[in-house]
Amino acid sequence: MTTTTLPTELLLRFVAIVGEKNALREQSDLEPHLVENRGLYHGASPLLLRPGTTEEVAAIMRLASDTGTAIVPQTGNTGLVGGQTPRSGASDVILSLERMNRVRDIDPVANVIVVDGGCILDEVHKAAEKVERMFPLSLGSQGSCRIGGNLATNAGGTAVLAYGNMRQLCLGLEVVLPTGEIWDGLRRLKKDNTGYDLRDLFIGSEGTLGIITGAVLKLFPKPLGHQVAFAGLDSPADALKLFERASTLCGTALTGFELMPRIGIEFTTRHIPGVRDPLEAPHPWYALIDISTSDSAETAQTMIETLLEQGFEAGVLQDAVIASSESQRQALWHMRESMSDAQKPEGGSIKHDVSVPVSHIPDFMEAAEKGVLNAIPGARICAFGHLGDGNIHYNISQPVGADKTAFIARWREINEIVHGIVLNFGGSISAEHGIGQLKRDELAAIRPAIELDLMRRIKTAFDPAGIMNPGKVVTV
Amino acid sequence: MTTTTLPTELLLRFVAIVGEKNALREQSDLEPHLVENRGLYHGASPLLLRPGTTEEVAAIMRLASDTGTAIVPQTGNTGLVGGQTPRSGASDVILSLERMNRVRDIDPVANVIVVDGGCILDEVHKAAEKVERMFPLSLGSQGSCRIGGNLATNAGGTAVLAYGNMRQLCLGLEVVLPTGEIWDGLRRLKKDNTGYDLRDLFIGSEGTLGIITGAVLKLFPKPLGHQVAFAGLDSPADALKLFERASTLCGTALTGFELMPRIGIEFTTRHIPGVRDPLEAPHPWYALIDISTSDSAETAQTMIETLLEQGFEAGVLQDAVIASSESQRQALWHMRESMSDAQKPEGGSIKHDVSVPVSHIPDFMEAAEKGVLNAIPGARICAFGHLGDGNIHYNISQPVGADKTAFIARWREINEIVHGIVLNFGGSISAEHGIGQLKRDELAAIRPAIELDLMRRIKTAFDPAGIMNPGKVVTV
Repeated sequence: MTTTTLPTELLLRFVAIVGEKNALREQSDLEPHLVENRGLYHGASPLLLRPGTTEEVAAIMRLASDTGTAIVPQTGNTGLVGGQTPRSGASDVILSLERMNRVRDIDPVANVIVVDGGCILDEVHKAAEKVERMFPLSLGSQGSCRIGGNLATNAGGTAVLAYGNMRQLCLGLEVVLPTGEIWDGLRRLKKDNTGYDLRDLFIGSEGTLGIITGAVLKLFPKPLGHQVAFAGLDSPADALKLFERASTLCGTALTGFELMPRIGIEFTTRHIPGVRDPLEAPHPWYALIDISTSDSAETAQTMIETLLEQGFEAGVLQDAVIASSESQRQALWHMRESMSDAQKPEGGSIKHDVSVPVSHIPDFMEAAEKGVLNAIPGARICAFGHLGDGNIHYNISQPVGADKTAFIARWREINEIVHGIVLNFGGSISAEHGIGQLKRDELAAIRPAIELDLMRRIKTAFDPAGIMNPGKVVTV
Repeated sequence: MTTTTLPTELLLRFVAIVGEKNALREQSDLEPHLVENRGLYHGASPLLLRPGTTEEVAAIMRLASDTGTAIVPQTGNTGLVGGQTPRSGASDVILSLERMNRVRDIDPVANVIVVDGGCILDEVHKAAEKVERMFPLSLGSQGSCRIGGNLATNAGGTAVLAYGNMRQLCLGLEVVLPTGEIWDGLRRLKKDNTGYDLRDLFIGSEGTLGIITGAVLKLFPKPLGHQVAFAGLDSPADALKLFERASTLCGTALTGFELMPRIGIEFTTRHIPGVRDPLEAPHPWYALIDISTSDSAETAQTMIETLLEQGFEAGVLQDAVIASSESQRQALWHMRESMSDAQKPEGGSIKHDVSVPVSHIPDFMEAAEKGVLNAIPGARICAFGHLGDGNIHYNISQPVGADKTAFIARWREINEIVHGIVLNFGGSISAEHGIGQLKRDELAAIRPAIELDLMRRIKTAFDPAGIMNPGKVVTV
């Protein structure tokens, strides 16, 4: 890490916008904002600003634009690709939205909530709950991640199957542009065909086109019925067949369909306190099936029972259990959500966040396993995730007794193997985590020149000074 | 209309790309392509080209780009805002996708269909039907409108409530850029966070940023249960209350909720053969409620009965009938879909396609009625549409016995009144039809300067020569 500086006079002009107490300058105060969750990146910054209003954000961006100062927007700092981390060896100023954390308005009749970009996801859940509504985005980091970041990365999570990503959950945005201008696109409309879709351009652009300071999000009625089942399966092919049945039977009442391997159950039962194998005998694969119904509790129960019955009859599932209480349902989800953490005590883990068309999941799993084991015999593949979305977190734990550092050193090589197979199936090398710094060069290598060119043209059109989260997603 | 020409040498170069028989030059052949459905625009063009492949489209665009020739993409020519009509007094070349009408691939396991941009919507319905699937976009013009145009205008229709607009129904695109380059974005992925959302930028850009030559669309399981009810109501406020109940009770099984006024029922029973008032006594307002369930036929029946029961108990509906057969269901929908046609024999009609947040519908209806009747006493307001989407086709028939020409001459004045009220409620002046030529200047007048500026920057970045459907949506 290189220590970086900013001319004192300029630094003080930035500080003056938010006031001394909302400007961090000590490296010890800045430190937590310079590293991301997995420790893959350690950036440098001379200054962190915590504006309290959209106007203050705009003033910061005007000054940055005038002076060519790079700005890195940061919300909950929970991103997994280094998108929110300042560059190393530069003097990026961090703009944190943590003080802009208000619920601006909530309307349970129109089913919308309007929030600041720095509002914590869990606070949105709670605000919705208070008016008997539900906001469906559900993530492991929901206690600390913030809406601006969720939108900037088009966050996914476990409820995408029925409700979609953040893109589908957002009606309108307020964005401060790199030039410091404010775009008020806080519309609450379900239908609006008036010009280019600026909203969806900002969503998923990872803070490189502007700073999302406010958003109108959709709310939903709280489901009356909720059932969760855990099924033991022979193969991903059987999981796919079961998913197809579930999809046909339940339609959008199917709110989750997660795939897990035996080794994931072993890791979680071994390392996560309180987790027990829900089934008596071991199975090579498992599915967690989540059904939510809005008309009645009985519908969900009938659905889950019918699905399992059909699954047994068709021979696509070997054993299954239905959670009989809310605490049992939570325990099943806890097991699934702990799977990544449960890998840590097992040594190094090389991770992928990929998607393929749902129908290709079994073939992809087979091909990827061959490729990885060919490169690293004994590697323990713990591939789990959102089968219903075609999205697998293809994680690989080191062989038992292997050297962790030597294993992790092969991250790029293994990425190349797995991503090569993903691309053969028409898949994506980043299903939900985004590009950031981690996958920027890889994206540039796999995408057609015209696509990168269009992205660069947009970037230049929106950020002519090149100051908005530079070095992330695409280089100009 | 001014007759326009193109230098013969240039014209022959364009013709050579598609071959003589796929180039129309006679004004009598061109005529049907120069006018749009409502007769609001009559453009001019020296040449219509019918390319048969994406490569031919690209060759046309390269030549157009090199020579500064304006190109107007056209598919089914069913648009309602003049977006597909060549300009008057210019020499725009029409590029028709009508020969590119193939279904390229269909995968009922992954629930996707890949089609040419010129594929007719009804052909997509039929192809889906053949593999026991359903493509939900449903429009009055589905026998002639084509997918490229549906995507270019982000088409809506009657199934948006449960399935969304075209934007929500599309996974990937193939686009020929104004420069003649081809962007292959034909991805089939449900989740893909790799860079800027080019797909959604092209969708809804009305052919001003590129030509959509191919698309990957989502398919859905065919519903097992389908119920349609027709209810007599006292007011839009009661309709809103009934919608809220329906929404909570049915969730995404609520596939349609249409509002209609008494005068609309009078017009349809008077002018559309075979249409009869489904209820014994007249009511000021009506709702058409459509429920589709994927688990069983019984669920739909229970839902519709429970909803009407609850509605009666709460006093929000006065009378109701449930269609008892498929033909009765079709008859109810036919009445709703004929409402615009049924206005024609009643004289001139000034039309609006607006949306407001759903909870504001009753207040909007009241304010708009006051405004319109104040300007034109005796005007007959036939406002109907997709209440569940907040989208009302606010149509106004002339007073009985008034002069049609004099009435239609007040189109702009009445637009201003209605749109002013719409904007007061945070609404949209074009909920589903788009901007085209009709609303371009009005959009420029109501939108903040920064938003128009961002649209212009995108337009210039994608179409530096300014040849792609010029004069539509936004002027540079």
